[in-house]
Amino acid sequence: MVDERVGKLARVLVDYSIEAGEGDQVLVFGEVGAGPLIKELYARVLQVGATPITQVSLPGTQELFFAHAQGLHYEEIPQVTRAIYEGADAQIGIRSPSNTRALANVDPSRQQALQRRNRPLSEMMLEKNRWVLTLFPTEALAQEAHMSLAEYEEFAFEAMGLNEEDPVRYWSEKSAEQERLKERLEQAREIRIVGPETDLTLSVEGRTFVNSAGRRNMPCGEVFTGPVEDSANGIVYFGVPAAIGGREVAGVRLRFEEGKVVEASAEKGEEYLMSLLDTDAGARYLGELGIGTNYGIRRASANVLFDEKLGGTVHLAIGRSYAETGGKNESSVHTDLVCDLRDGGELYADGELIQENGRFREFDLLAGVRDDG
Amino acid sequence: MVDERVGKLARVLVDYSIEAGEGDQVLVFGEVGAGPLIKELYARVLQVGATPITQVSLPGTQELFFAHAQGLHYEEIPQVTRAIYEGADAQIGIRSPSNTRALANVDPSRQQALQRRNRPLSEMMLEKNRWVLTLFPTEALAQEAHMSLAEYEEFAFEAMGLNEEDPVRYWSEKSAEQERLKERLEQAREIRIVGPETDLTLSVEGRTFVNSAGRRNMPCGEVFTGPVEDSANGIVYFGVPAAIGGREVAGVRLRFEEGKVVEASAEKGEEYLMSLLDTDAGARYLGELGIGTNYGIRRASANVLFDEKLGGTVHLAIGRSYAETGGKNESSVHTDLVCDLRDGGELYADGELIQENGRFREFDLLAGVRDDG
Repeated sequence: MVDERVGKLARVLVDYSIEAGEGDQVLVFGEVGAGPLIKELYARVLQVGATPITQVSLPGTQELFFAHAQGLHYEEIPQVTRAIYEGADAQIGIRSPSNTRALANVDPSRQQALQRRNRPLSEMMLEKNRWVLTLFPTEALAQEAHMSLAEYEEFAFEAMGLNEEDPVRYWSEKSAEQERLKERLEQAREIRIVGPETDLTLSVEGRTFVNSAGRRNMPCGEVFTGPVEDSANGIVYFGVPAAIGGREVAGVRLRFEEGKVVEASAEKGEEYLMSLLDTDAGARYLGELGIGTNYGIRRASANVLFDEKLGGTVHLAIGRSYAETGGKNESSVHTDLVCDLRDGGELYADGELIQENGRFREFDLLAGVRDDG
Repeated sequence: MVDERVGKLARVLVDYSIEAGEGDQVLVFGEVGAGPLIKELYARVLQVGATPITQVSLPGTQELFFAHAQGLHYEEIPQVTRAIYEGADAQIGIRSPSNTRALANVDPSRQQALQRRNRPLSEMMLEKNRWVLTLFPTEALAQEAHMSLAEYEEFAFEAMGLNEEDPVRYWSEKSAEQERLKERLEQAREIRIVGPETDLTLSVEGRTFVNSAGRRNMPCGEVFTGPVEDSANGIVYFGVPAAIGGREVAGVRLRFEEGKVVEASAEKGEEYLMSLLDTDAGARYLGELGIGTNYGIRRASANVLFDEKLGGTVHLAIGRSYAETGGKNESSVHTDLVCDLRDGGELYADGELIQENGRFREFDLLAGVRDDG
């Protein structure tokens, strides 16, 4: 028996996140471990009159690419791959790795070269603006998060609002409250983040905050923008460990001057962090400031899709900004790092304290969140 | 440890069957159960400078299509699917079902409607003339063949010549001997097949026999043509059971008059056989006469990819003929049925007995075949 929440998730993704309808061609990407979700999506997409185009990957294929690809394979997107993306009206990506560290020993320059090659595909996806990225519980994800698979399933499905009778309504209501937060933030010129080893200011003047409540990511729950490129000044400590490109990167400290990272260190994965910062000119500038609003997530799980939404955290991405925010930074990198404000943190908008110890003063984002956490 | 014969198979398919080279885009289709072969193919395709485009399907997806697809889904090939086929230079298809009877209860008219929809895709593949169809052992295939998986693996890999040190050389040598057989058959105007409950004549005048030795099918080992459309007269009993569209079809008897099936019955699956014959105008005419030459296959396994190659059998396909044979029959059906001549059978070319009890008189197709069978 498939968990009924998997069917609920499929309906949220198809009906709400990408709003698939008659005649749409919907790409569904996922590793084999996402099988139960892929099949629910396949059925749901057909039910709404759209056509599913599944792109299922096998465990180990990525490693094979890096082991056997030649120069030409990094130069150009295969025409068939490009045609798949071009023809699709919407896409659903599912992270369901069988091994989160499978790429740990791959030369980072190869990973970055592939990412550069594929950049037009991401841009195409962003332009069409009908995409969502989600995750399906696997043993590997549970292991990375130090949980059993059963525990991890509960953790993930709770974060996605799938214990609600009507998850679409749940996310619609969340969205309304986040809209108020977005409006408050758009009135501000300067955001200041204060916390353990952290005191950073940045300008968001004239920028748009995006209210992310179920359309782009599932779980969702964040408002984010692209800060003014040369505005970041100060220091920030990212206490939440990340798994990036198959590596653990933890305890990152960055110092910014006029928007640029001028000092960087990491307790773990420092070399990889440095290679990211040196990928291209934009990789040392910020592409995103995000504020997590999902209080259904209780703890970090070494997975950015969840950690960046964690209520009581903020995250900053080095690299590419999203055009819709007004952000202008360009890079083939977009790497989120998460700063925990739940213990002694403060968030200011033009000098006004809007969040303390991870809790907002005026915005009720806890509604619907269970008390048992 | 993956069986080393899987790597050998990948090299045969990539280097010999489709002759992939730099810049080629190679589609690889298979169900998840073919994982080990798909990964070997992925690596080999990259190694020769080509690009693999894998299209992996999940068990159960086909059933979901028939359960949820609406009218529009049967009408048109999705544009993205069409683009995938159009852009590919070559394709490798792998049959690796997790359940050979998964479609047993699907309305045959739906299966045929989908087949009709997809006909342009098959035609595209045939025109490009760089494709191969193979099989990867699964529990379901072993079950269908009444073997254990380990037994089935031995059976399949022996049939594919993978116990040879150099399978490519093995198939090249087979090909040369089959070429002689092809030349003999092309001199003939009339072929007569005699066996248990079987006495059928058909004209092959002016038609081309195709020597299939590793390019289109693996295992291979047949020479085939498209008989003259109105020429078949007589009766034929197909003693080898088939699994078609998820059904068992066994003990088929057909009577032909001037090329057309005028009487048909089956000991099993008769209703389904009838629905096939009534699919369209061409479905009651023959599209293929094939002669199995693979004596490394010892027994029938309810799988046409193997059974039609079985040394000592002939097969006839109702429906579409292959253009390269000179055959002109058109249909969305192409269903092979296998007639066993090993016990009392005779094959005549213009009255000359060329095969008796399944053994050729002049052509040595047993070379390299093991004696232990």
